[in-house]
Amino acid sequence: MSKVDLNCDLGESFGAYRIGNDESILEHVTSVNVACGFHAGDPSVMRKTVKLAAEKKVQIGAHPGLQDLIGFGRRNMNISPQEAYDIVVYQIGALNGFLQAEGLSMQHVKPHGALYNMAAKNKALSEAIAKAVYNVNPELILFGLSGSELIQAGNRIGLKTANEVFADRTYQLDGSLTARTEPNALIENDDEAVSQVITMVKEGKVKSQQGKDVELQADTICIHGDGAHALEFARHVNRSLRASEVVVKAISK
Amino acid sequence: MSKVDLNCDLGESFGAYRIGNDESILEHVTSVNVACGFHAGDPSVMRKTVKLAAEKKVQIGAHPGLQDLIGFGRRNMNISPQEAYDIVVYQIGALNGFLQAEGLSMQHVKPHGALYNMAAKNKALSEAIAKAVYNVNPELILFGLSGSELIQAGNRIGLKTANEVFADRTYQLDGSLTARTEPNALIENDDEAVSQVITMVKEGKVKSQQGKDVELQADTICIHGDGAHALEFARHVNRSLRASEVVVKAISK
Amino acid sequence: MSKVDLNCDLGESFGAYRIGNDESILEHVTSVNVACGFHAGDPSVMRKTVKLAAEKKVQIGAHPGLQDLIGFGRRNMNISPQEAYDIVVYQIGALNGFLQAEGLSMQHVKPHGALYNMAAKNKALSEAIAKAVYNVNPELILFGLSGSELIQAGNRIGLKTANEVFADRTYQLDGSLTARTEPNALIENDDEAVSQVITMVKEGKVKSQQGKDVELQADTICIHGDGAHALEFARHVNRSLRASEVVVKAISK
Amino acid sequence: MSKVDLNCDLGESFGAYRIGNDESILEHVTSVNVACGFHAGDPSVMRKTVKLAAEKKVQIGAHPGLQDLIGFGRRNMNISPQEAYDIVVYQIGALNGFLQAEGLSMQHVKPHGALYNMAAKNKALSEAIAKAVYNVNPELILFGLSGSELIQAGNRIGLKTANEVFADRTYQLDGSLTARTEPNALIENDDEAVSQVITMVKEGKVKSQQGKDVELQADTICIHGDGAHALEFARHVNRSLRASEVVVKAISK
Repeated sequence: MSKVDLNCDLGESFGAYRIGNDESILEHVTSVNVACGFHAGDPSVMRKTVKLAAEKKVQIGAHPGLQDLIGFGRRNMNISPQEAYDIVVYQIGALNGFLQAEGLSMQHVKPHGALYNMAAKNKALSEAIAKAVYNVNPELILFGLSGSELIQAGNRIGLKTANEVFADRTYQLDGSLTARTEPNALIENDDEAVSQVITMVKEGKVKSQQGKDVELQADTICIHGDGAHALEFARHVNRSLRASEVVVKAISK
Repeated sequence: MSKVDLNCDLGESFGAYRIGNDESILEHVTSVNVACGFHAGDPSVMRKTVKLAAEKKVQIGAHPGLQDLIGFGRRNMNISPQEAYDIVVYQIGALNGFLQAEGLSMQHVKPHGALYNMAAKNKALSEAIAKAVYNVNPELILFGLSGSELIQAGNRIGLKTANEVFADRTYQLDGSLTARTEPNALIENDDEAVSQVITMVKEGKVKSQQGKDVELQADTICIHGDGAHALEFARHVNRSLRASEVVVKAISK
Repeated sequence: MSKVDLNCDLGESFGAYRIGNDESILEHVTSVNVACGFHAGDPSVMRKTVKLAAEKKVQIGAHPGLQDLIGFGRRNMNISPQEAYDIVVYQIGALNGFLQAEGLSMQHVKPHGALYNMAAKNKALSEAIAKAVYNVNPELILFGLSGSELIQAGNRIGLKTANEVFADRTYQLDGSLTARTEPNALIENDDEAVSQVITMVKEGKVKSQQGKDVELQADTICIHGDGAHALEFARHVNRSLRASEVVVKAISK
Repeated sequence: MSKVDLNCDLGESFGAYRIGNDESILEHVTSVNVACGFHAGDPSVMRKTVKLAAEKKVQIGAHPGLQDLIGFGRRNMNISPQEAYDIVVYQIGALNGFLQAEGLSMQHVKPHGALYNMAAKNKALSEAIAKAVYNVNPELILFGLSGSELIQAGNRIGLKTANEVFADRTYQLDGSLTARTEPNALIENDDEAVSQVITMVKEGKVKSQQGKDVELQADTICIHGDGAHALEFARHVNRSLRASEVVVKAISK
C-alpha cells in the first residue's frame, strides 16, 4: 500500500508579528518544518511551536533559511557553500535546543525558500547542506525537491531523504516545477490538484505541461498553512489520500 | 591542593569584523565562552572558534547574550524571565550544533554581559536561565558571579555551578563587585591583581574595599582576551597560580 | 473654541508581516506617527505609508524607536543619551528621505514605546531626544506625554511641543498615567473614555484615580489603530469631539 | 588642466567593532562615501564620521548597501528594483539626518559592494537607484562604475554623474573591470597602478588586458582605506596626480 507524508511550514511568526494558522493546520499534516529565526521565527515562537507540534503528535523538522528576515528568506543570495553549511548547522542546533528541552527528537531538515530553490539546482550548495545535516546528526532525514540536486547530495552522503512534491504546482518534462513567472504554474482547481497528488503518490508519475507523463518520487507533500483556503485544501488532500487507500503518516514512521 | 579554571570569552568576531586574539589567548586558559550570534559571533565564526578551541584542548561553553549586536549585549534590557529562558535555550542549541558536527561536547554555559549582570541580582531571571540550561542538558555546568543569584539558582535546580571571580576587579563587603562607576573599581597593578586571585583561590576570601576580608568561592577566573596587555596578564595569572601550587585545569576535569 | 489633534501609529508592518488597519484608521485621525525601521516598519512599508497618509491629507511624523524589532521597541533598554540622540537623528532622517521623495514635509516626531516611556521620566534622555529633533529641523513639533520631561525638554530647547493624552487610560494625582500593572489602568467603557477626553480637551483637566481633578494639557490624543474595535473607538472619539464643538485638526494647522 | 576626485569608503565600523583608518585616510581623499547602517556603520558611527569628514573639509556622500550586515553587503541578492529604490531612499535620508544636524550638505551617492556591482550591469536596478537619488534631491551627484548602466541611468534622469575608475584593477576591451576571479585582475605594482590612473585621468583611456587602449572617463578614483599599505598608496596616488599637474579636488568643486 502506498504511503506519504504531509508536511507544512510552521512557527513563522516573529516578535509582535503573527503569521499562519499553526494550530489548525497541525490537524492535517504529519510533519512540520519549524522556522529557526533567520528568515522567520524567534526563540519564543520556536518554543511554543515545538510544544504545539508535540501535543498534536506531529513530527518536527528544522526549516533553516537565509539571513534575510525582511525578505522572508525568499530572495536568492550569493552565499558560499561554506556559509550554507554554517547557517544550516546553526539553525538545526538552535531548534534542537528546544527539542532537547522538551525531551523530543528532530525528524528532518528542510531548507526554506531561496535556500531550498538554490539547493535544488546547485550541486556545491546542496552538498554543503547535506554535509551540515549529516555532521550534526546522520539520523536526520533531508527533505528536498523530488529528484533535485539536494536529494542526490543527501543520498550520496548517506542520509535518508524525502522527495517532496507540490500539490498545487505544475511540472515540466524534466520533472522540475513550472516557474511561477509562467502561466499555468499553479493549479487553481482543488480537485485537479488532489488528483495530481494521488497519481504522484500511487503511480510515481505526473503529467507534465508538455503533455507527457514524467516519473517522479513522492515521499512527502508540501502543504501551505496560511490563508483560510489553505486549511480547507489541506483537509481535502489529507482525506482524499486516505480515501484512495494511501497511508498518510510521518516520513519516519 | 587548590585548583581553579581560567575562562575567557572567545569567538566575538562578526562577519567582516574582527575582535580579539583568539588563537593567542587559548594558550593561557582552560575554558572558553563562545559567543552565539546574538551579542557577537556568527555561524562561521562559531564553527572556526569551536575547531580552534578543540585543537588547543580547551573546554568549550556557550556564552549566550542579549539580542543587541549593536550594543555588544552590554546594555541592560527589560526582558522577561520567559524571554531569558528562550534566548538561552536557542543559543546553547546553536553552539551545540557546531559541537555535534565536530563530535565534541559542551562543558558549560556562561551568560554574557548585561544578561550575566542582571542574572547575578535578579532571582526570577536567574531561575529562568538555570532552567534553560538544565532542560537542554542537566550535565552542563553553569558559570556565574561567585555567590550570586545565578549560582544559587543553578544549585537549587541541580546543576553543577562554577563560582566566577575577577582578577582585576575590587570587591565590596557583601561580596559584590565594586561598580565600574566607582573609583578603585579596577585593580590596575598586575601583581596586586595576581595576589588577590591567589588568595581567592587558595583561601576562599578577598579583602573588601571596606578593609575587611570577605569569604568568596573561586572556581573559575575570568580572563580578558582583547588587548596586547590582556595576553601578558593572562600568562602572568596562569604562571603565578601554578607557581603557587594551584592546579589550573578546566572546571570539568 | 477648543481644538485638538488625533494621532495614531502607522506603518508598523515589516517584510512579509502585516500589522494594523492603516487605510481605515487614516479616516479618523489628523496626524500619524510612522515607524522608521528600528522597532517596526521597513523601507518599503515606509514608502507606502507616506504615500497613503499624503493621499488622505493626514500630517506625517516620525516614530523613532529602540533597535529592538523582536520586542517591538517596548522593552526598556539602558541606552545612553548620546545613543538616544543618534538613533533619533537617524530615524527622522530615514523617514524624511521618503517625504522628500514625495515632495512632502514632516510635521512632528513622537518617540515610540519604551523610548517614549523612558523619555517621559528621564531628563537626560529627553534632552538628547529634543536636541536630536531640534538639530535636524527646529520646525518639527515634538510629541510627548502631557507635562512630561520630554515636553519640558522640547520647550526648553525651543521646539513647539504637543502634550499627548490617552483616551482609554486613567490618571494619577500627579498627572501620570496609572501603570498598566495596576487595576483600573484602562478605561474599558467607551463612553467614559470619550467623556474623559472631552473634559481633558475642553477644560484642561482629568479626574484622577484618587478622586481629585488634575490639570493637564491636551494638544493631541493617542488613538490605537489595531483591532476592529480600535476603528470603531477612533470614529466614536472623533465624532464626539466634533459634536462637542471641539475642532479636530492636525497640530500644525 | 585635468581634474579628478579621490573617493574613499568611510564609517564602516559597527557597535563595538572597528574597521578602517578613517582619520588617516581623510588626509588623502577629497570625497568620502559614508556607510549608512545596512551593510556597515551605525547611527553613532555615522554621527562621528560626518563630523570627522567635515573637520577635514572633505565632501560627504551616502554609501547605501544591501541589508546584509553579516556579508558586509558584498553578496549579490535578488532584490527587486522597487526594493533597491526603497533602501536607497532610506539610507540617503538617514545619513542626511546627521548632515542636517551639523548644518552640512550631501554631495553624492555611491552604492556599495554588491549593489554597486549589480547596478553596473542591470538597467532596471540602476534606473531605480538613479530615481531614488533624483527624487530625494536632484542636486546629488551619482557615483558609478565608469560607463556603466548606473552612470547611464543617472544621466538619463538628469543627475550629474561621476564616472569612477580603479587604480589597482585591470580593464577589459569593453571597458569593464577584469573579474577578481581572473589572474591579473589586480595591479600589484604601485607605480604601474599610479601610471594607469594618470593616463586614465589625463588621456581618458586605459590599456586593456587584450592590449588595446580603451576610452574611459575618469571623474573620480576609488581609494581603499583599510590596511597600512592603503594609506601609503593613497598618498602616492594623490601626490603623483598633483605632480602630473592634475587638479585633485572634490567632484562638486
